[in-house]
Amino acid sequence: MTDQGLLLVFDQTVSRAGVDGWIRHLESAGAPTQAYRLGSSLVLPVSDVDVLDTAGPDLPAPTRQAPRVVGASLWSRELRPAGTRVTLGPTTIGDGSVAVIAGPCAVETPEQMMTTAAAVAEHGAVGLRGGVFKPRTWPYSFQGLKWDGLDMLVQARERTGLPFVTEVAEPEHVKRLAEVVDGFQIGARNMQNFALLSAVGQSGLPVVLKRGFGCTVEETLAAGEYLLHEGNDQVVLCERGIRTFEPSARFTLDVTAVAVWKQRTHLPVMADPSHSGGRPELVEPLSLAAVGAGADALLIDVHVQPELALCDGNQALRPPQFAGLMARLASAAAGLGRQLSRADSNGARASTTGERA
Amino acid sequence: MTDQGLLLVFDQTVSRAGVDGWIRHLESAGAPTQAYRLGSSLVLPVSDVDVLDTAGPDLPAPTRQAPRVVGASLWSRELRPAGTRVTLGPTTIGDGSVAVIAGPCAVETPEQMMTTAAAVAEHGAVGLRGGVFKPRTWPYSFQGLKWDGLDMLVQARERTGLPFVTEVAEPEHVKRLAEVVDGFQIGARNMQNFALLSAVGQSGLPVVLKRGFGCTVEETLAAGEYLLHEGNDQVVLCERGIRTFEPSARFTLDVTAVAVWKQRTHLPVMADPSHSGGRPELVEPLSLAAVGAGADALLIDVHVQPELALCDGNQALRPPQFAGLMARLASAAAGLGRQLSRADSNGARASTTGERA
Amino acid sequence: MTDQGLLLVFDQTVSRAGVDGWIRHLESAGAPTQAYRLGSSLVLPVSDVDVLDTAGPDLPAPTRQAPRVVGASLWSRELRPAGTRVTLGPTTIGDGSVAVIAGPCAVETPEQMMTTAAAVAEHGAVGLRGGVFKPRTWPYSFQGLKWDGLDMLVQARERTGLPFVTEVAEPEHVKRLAEVVDGFQIGARNMQNFALLSAVGQSGLPVVLKRGFGCTVEETLAAGEYLLHEGNDQVVLCERGIRTFEPSARFTLDVTAVAVWKQRTHLPVMADPSHSGGRPELVEPLSLAAVGAGADALLIDVHVQPELALCDGNQALRPPQFAGLMARLASAAAGLGRQLSRADSNGARASTTGERA
Amino acid sequence: MTDQGLLLVFDQTVSRAGVDGWIRHLESAGAPTQAYRLGSSLVLPVSDVDVLDTAGPDLPAPTRQAPRVVGASLWSRELRPAGTRVTLGPTTIGDGSVAVIAGPCAVETPEQMMTTAAAVAEHGAVGLRGGVFKPRTWPYSFQGLKWDGLDMLVQARERTGLPFVTEVAEPEHVKRLAEVVDGFQIGARNMQNFALLSAVGQSGLPVVLKRGFGCTVEETLAAGEYLLHEGNDQVVLCERGIRTFEPSARFTLDVTAVAVWKQRTHLPVMADPSHSGGRPELVEPLSLAAVGAGADALLIDVHVQPELALCDGNQALRPPQFAGLMARLASAAAGLGRQLSRADSNGARASTTGERA
Repeated sequence: MTDQGLLLVFDQTVSRAGVDGWIRHLESAGAPTQAYRLGSSLVLPVSDVDVLDTAGPDLPAPTRQAPRVVGASLWSRELRPAGTRVTLGPTTIGDGSVAVIAGPCAVETPEQMMTTAAAVAEHGAVGLRGGVFKPRTWPYSFQGLKWDGLDMLVQARERTGLPFVTEVAEPEHVKRLAEVVDGFQIGARNMQNFALLSAVGQSGLPVVLKRGFGCTVEETLAAGEYLLHEGNDQVVLCERGIRTFEPSARFTLDVTAVAVWKQRTHLPVMADPSHSGGRPELVEPLSLAAVGAGADALLIDVHVQPELALCDGNQALRPPQFAGLMARLASAAAGLGRQLSRADSNGARASTTGERA
Repeated sequence: MTDQGLLLVFDQTVSRAGVDGWIRHLESAGAPTQAYRLGSSLVLPVSDVDVLDTAGPDLPAPTRQAPRVVGASLWSRELRPAGTRVTLGPTTIGDGSVAVIAGPCAVETPEQMMTTAAAVAEHGAVGLRGGVFKPRTWPYSFQGLKWDGLDMLVQARERTGLPFVTEVAEPEHVKRLAEVVDGFQIGARNMQNFALLSAVGQSGLPVVLKRGFGCTVEETLAAGEYLLHEGNDQVVLCERGIRTFEPSARFTLDVTAVAVWKQRTHLPVMADPSHSGGRPELVEPLSLAAVGAGADALLIDVHVQPELALCDGNQALRPPQFAGLMARLASAAAGLGRQLSRADSNGARASTTGERA
Repeated sequence: MTDQGLLLVFDQTVSRAGVDGWIRHLESAGAPTQAYRLGSSLVLPVSDVDVLDTAGPDLPAPTRQAPRVVGASLWSRELRPAGTRVTLGPTTIGDGSVAVIAGPCAVETPEQMMTTAAAVAEHGAVGLRGGVFKPRTWPYSFQGLKWDGLDMLVQARERTGLPFVTEVAEPEHVKRLAEVVDGFQIGARNMQNFALLSAVGQSGLPVVLKRGFGCTVEETLAAGEYLLHEGNDQVVLCERGIRTFEPSARFTLDVTAVAVWKQRTHLPVMADPSHSGGRPELVEPLSLAAVGAGADALLIDVHVQPELALCDGNQALRPPQFAGLMARLASAAAGLGRQLSRADSNGARASTTGERA
Repeated sequence: MTDQGLLLVFDQTVSRAGVDGWIRHLESAGAPTQAYRLGSSLVLPVSDVDVLDTAGPDLPAPTRQAPRVVGASLWSRELRPAGTRVTLGPTTIGDGSVAVIAGPCAVETPEQMMTTAAAVAEHGAVGLRGGVFKPRTWPYSFQGLKWDGLDMLVQARERTGLPFVTEVAEPEHVKRLAEVVDGFQIGARNMQNFALLSAVGQSGLPVVLKRGFGCTVEETLAAGEYLLHEGNDQVVLCERGIRTFEPSARFTLDVTAVAVWKQRTHLPVMADPSHSGGRPELVEPLSLAAVGAGADALLIDVHVQPELALCDGNQALRPPQFAGLMARLASAAAGLGRQLSRADSNGARASTTGERA
């Protein structure tokens, strides 16, 4: 998983003209390339390393160099050793804290969404989840409230002050959703829906990219590259369990993937213990395991009445269980020299949250 | 994988009014349902079997009854015990013969497509393959010629008289492609792209549905149900290898899936030994294995110059290898009491192909 | 995974005569059974629950009842809700602390074993590991020093005061090894070597039972039952990674298995992040993940010169890395309300513990 | 999976003195090696290919050379391009025909074994199977009749003239069994029980080596090497299904493994569709698939009364189903230019073959 190429990184102190000089030099040397944007930096992939020797003294020195894996490898940790912070409304993911995003699997009713949102906000979640477009295995299953459900998420955000993420499943939904949502979620079944990835990349909004349950760690990076490639670096990689021969849980949470992504990429990593384990009693141990492996964030299904849920209710925590989880997580994070990400207060986060810097 | 429901099947001899009578009866009995079309039949799912006892004598008797798994289970073999024939231009898949669809993984140039098409037609293929929209793991890989490639497929069809299938990856491409193609292919990475499934289902055109490499036999049925559910019964299920721990081939061809689908569904089953094995020397044994397990059709990568291919060239057969495969398949099919599906002649298939009836 | 039977548990306050009365009663009622020993308790499986109604008043009441899964289900948490403590020389596994067993994959030389043992003891390990019988995939690989290596383990124990476990691979080795070792290890490839399980069970010594990399959570319980069934309750279940499609690490550590075993059994659970991840940089995140999921113990490969190791050197930690791991683990354990198991706090450890302070 | 070494093969026309000359030469040149026996040939692994240049003219030329993978790679097809024939009593496996070994999963009673044996012989099996030592997942399951069952196999052999294979699970059973059995079977759970492999290798008897359900194609070769390494080339590799995420059958039959082994090794390959599929209706399609992929032999569970079987009865064929399978296989084999192995055409079979006509 390496080729012989190199990546030249130029931060914002380098002029665009200087970068264009490099592009012209490489082209004239028979190694044409193009620049990719990574936040405020520009990345130039170089396939023929020898051409660096012939660069004239007028060309600006790159801020850093890194080996490349394929293309521009925009996820590579060596491009941004300090890591990427993803800004989800007032919440930051990737600042060293543990951010918990919680809510129902699917938005069902205004009451269900509002009471669940209030409960998770009360117990320390810093973001909401709730699906309105629900890709389902069988066509006969509840497919979500679609556009009707979006308002309920907006109201829950207004009530709690917490940002929300929601799944987008079709490229043509991206623009309309982008006007409202704080962040997108791309589901496991769509991880290699490349048209969707490109559209979401172009939105520039934060995106939680869930690993396909049959896809590798590297394929997840490749899917992330589709997003980054569009100039969107607000990407969170999410491990949600893979398919294995083991039947004792719904999926097998691959904590090794969490560790590998943290080591190899600059992107924040999330884990979804609810969809992975598929049972409430597995959520706490899997959450603690994921945080132990280095996860920056967790995505937790919570429902005020799981027995009435229209989707995956059998894995949701009730609010008191969620409160217990949060207490346990706070203590565990401290043991790892970290802390739970906290909203400033219930509904009133300041824009300058010093403790999350 | 069974619930307590029942499916009532009404063939074209039963009036729509009679079916509507059943729908009203079930609704009034507190078990509302809706009719689904399966070819010229209508299928009524009944969740509460007891309500059959109260049906009046004026209601027409169903042509057959079958247990249901979920929803309308439109793939269930019990709905159509004789099996479904899929009509791909002049070619029939599912009539007991072995149909071979062959061609390059990706359409690259007019010459490459034409010479490959001519070669596979000469050696007995009854359909062409060739991708113009190529979903690729990395954004930097060749993504297909897109619309420009479509003409090359059309020309190859004109030259050889063979129908072609090509992959569709975005719902909004369906209508434009449907004007030209003989059949669609839905790729493994899109098997659970439900918007795409619905759009392709609505087209009414034949579709080769490739199993996702991380998806189960049952999930493939569920994806097929999305197509059938739109009234399109021209569905071919395609096994193309699954992800396992075994690294000695690209994927593990699951011939058990072929056997299970043949036993449980009325849909024809195809296998793709090229993408599964990933090496030319595995194509023949995997083809013979798939046919042994009951496959109705094979999808084979052939390229006149595999070493120059822009996509998956390392798995393509050269024309002479393909000729050898076809000879071997013809003999093996005979041993199974079957025969290779044959076009009437190179380029001149009559519309009344008695031998394929 | 449940049948209709029941388990009657009689602790040591119940006379053997009383249990024999139950056995006679059940036999006369047409439901013969036999008693199994679980520590100081006796367990009577009852297949026909109705026969309990006819038990006379002279029969002693069982201490507790539990549903059974199969046979006597001697691993079931309901038989011993407080959990089992496994006593490995002066070390206890399963008392709530986190016990770290460390050492080289294979014993190679007296110096290698002694220096490694001294290092891991200094940094807080409470047990030693080191293989002398090494099952290897190919017959040409180093197969261990066999009996010659055993003395080196003994000397390391004398020097450090730490108990050791070592792998046993053949039933006929059990007795001779049992005279010397503190505990056995059964390797992943032998998890279903039932003759070996029986022999080790009969030894009564502690045993670390490694899950086969292709075996399920439930099959591991079944293998554990072979040990328990012989009256040996000193069993530690060890997760060491399973085979999946994911190639980015040697195996996929299944932390869900750790959680499930903790919830369903009374046995302590260990994890082996070294063999699972196969790379030094994965040992710390996988260790923290396993402890987060509830592991009672860790098995860590440490080598003073990994580059010279004859077996799996590429996954071993160097002593300074191990020291860093232990510091991190101590803090993480505190965050979980636990602590690292410590050699000198376990009581009866030898007086020569100065170097381990 | 290749190193830089070479294998020198000397057939029986080369004197042992000549081979010893090579060994001395290589030793004196600083590349010591040892000779391995492969049937009547000797194989010399050479790690440093340069030393061949300095070999004197007095050293005999090797019969052939081959690249080596590891050690002596005694399974490599290049060592014996014509393939190995395994002689199981009067039956030959690996001569191009399709050999069917059939019988009950477990020997249960004299009547069950005898009637099943007579039935499978009547319908064309050329060998019997029947387990007397049954490794079982749970200690409470029927573990086989052990030594008592062996006589029943012997009697079935006497009655039918067919050789039998039976599973051996413990090294110390090998010698006693070797006095009676025609061939050994090593079960999937013991594929990496290396002490067992060595003992069976030393017996020199034919052995069916079943692939572990969590083991790779290459690990199976390595296990075979343990047998070959002892000078025993009478090894049949057996694919019996692997563990995957797919739950629709008991295991996933890996026909790619069959093809890869046929291409890479000189050993005959068997498949076990009964244990793989786990259901009678899957036996025929999986058998045909395996033969299509190149299998030399099949191992089929047959039971006269599956509903009474003590082990895996739910996958056994009844005799009439077996007869149908054999007819179908005969035709399919013909289509592949092969034929079913027949008891009376194998030559030296006993005169009491009347009932097998």
